[in-house]
Amino acid sequence: MSEEPQVPADPDDETEIPESHPRYESLLTRHRIEAGLEKGITSRQGLIAQGRGEAYDYLLGERTLPSADEAARAAAAQFLLADHPVVSVNGNVAALVPGEVVELAAVVGADIEVNLFNRTRERMERIAAHFREHGAESVKGLAADGEIPGLDHARATVDADGIERADVVLVPLEDGDRAEALADMGKTEIVVDLNPLSRSAQTAAIPIIDNIIRAVPNVTAHARDLQGSDETTLRTVVESFDSEAALAAAEEAIRTGR
Amino acid sequence: MSEEPQVPADPDDETEIPESHPRYESLLTRHRIEAGLEKGITSRQGLIAQGRGEAYDYLLGERTLPSADEAARAAAAQFLLADHPVVSVNGNVAALVPGEVVELAAVVGADIEVNLFNRTRERMERIAAHFREHGAESVKGLAADGEIPGLDHARATVDADGIERADVVLVPLEDGDRAEALADMGKTEIVVDLNPLSRSAQTAAIPIIDNIIRAVPNVTAHARDLQGSDETTLRTVVESFDSEAALAAAEEAIRTGR
Repeated sequence: MSEEPQVPADPDDETEIPESHPRYESLLTRHRIEAGLEKGITSRQGLIAQGRGEAYDYLLGERTLPSADEAARAAAAQFLLADHPVVSVNGNVAALVPGEVVELAAVVGADIEVNLFNRTRERMERIAAHFREHGAESVKGLAADGEIPGLDHARATVDADGIERADVVLVPLEDGDRAEALADMGKTEIVVDLNPLSRSAQTAAIPIIDNIIRAVPNVTAHARDLQGSDETTLRTVVESFDSEAALAAAEEAIRTGR
Repeated sequence: MSEEPQVPADPDDETEIPESHPRYESLLTRHRIEAGLEKGITSRQGLIAQGRGEAYDYLLGERTLPSADEAARAAAAQFLLADHPVVSVNGNVAALVPGEVVELAAVVGADIEVNLFNRTRERMERIAAHFREHGAESVKGLAADGEIPGLDHARATVDADGIERADVVLVPLEDGDRAEALADMGKTEIVVDLNPLSRSAQTAAIPIIDNIIRAVPNVTAHARDLQGSDETTLRTVVESFDSEAALAAAEEAIRTGR
């Protein structure tokens, strides 16, 4: 693979990245993911996954499609309707959008729970600490007293009062096995994924086919806008969202470049 | 951005990967790139680039298109016609196809020269040693007494009796700036890249839009087949290759999945 699109700068601090830079979002993403690796938050697999995301986003035109914006709005309404919403976070989510996740969780009243593909106590704690540094009051995932049926032990482990009892779960950048297992538990699943053909995206009640850097703040903005709406309004937003049409629109955009 | 397609195993040695595995090539690639990181050969940027490659290869159907096979044949003929052919190698090439590059270079009589996006003496030496371990008799790049005009110093540095005087250069997984600078020097450039829209691919006389794991052995196979052919035959193979048609075919395959 070539190293395009080029992201030339390598700033020590993200405030050094000029917002006017034509590749600002790429620079910021790259900076955060590399800083995440240095902090022991991002894994090698996470770097490779980041590269896959870059390719899909490049083909997508590095923009939020109207269908992804509708998905973000439906996700916001779904969160506001939930009794026990949880945002499930992994190493890349922690590296890329820590402050944005804390803000979303605060606005919709969701818990944040760490769940790793390659679970080690040390990395779990480091990621939880990273979210606390970004303003999270509490971070779940370390109690590890719950289980998702149908996965091998390390991947199945969750908190009983977190993901296990959740009715609505946002799983950004999730692998297909776990996304399916959560759906099988009857959770209403919101996925953020740049590949509309991935099993995670196909499994989700609400797939948001967008870069997580754009998607999470967008869900928060819609949640702020919808806050105070009555239940009927929120249900209408959720029910008018068509996930198959959204997936088809994203695939079309990636395939045709339009 | 999800972790699909899944590559479950994590073997210590690539001989542990069963060739019958439905994702054998992915497993082998992933194994080599991670081993490369451990050996200090692959960079972080290399891991991200690897992920981009995976996404494009996934969309391409993880196969060698007929147009990519024609490009590989034209590349082989071009190599056999060359006076001073060079294979330019970076960290990912070293990690992914060290033995395959050594074999190709031997068959077509090319030099191997290391050139890094992020050049450090230590990594240059490590990569040169890695190729020698895989059978290369000599590896260029460390003399650093030549220059590619139009690039900043670290990227421009080459060997005077290597890339600087080469008439045909294979630059697999090359970034756009350097690919353009080499073309501007009048080199006949062969590129291996999975993104047909990249500047490297667009710049090359012969773009091979294929996974490097498949492309390099394929060029070698064609070179063996064409060895001993007369110059007219070789020129006909090169001239009958249509790079624009090959790029269009690859883009069509990625866009439509066919």
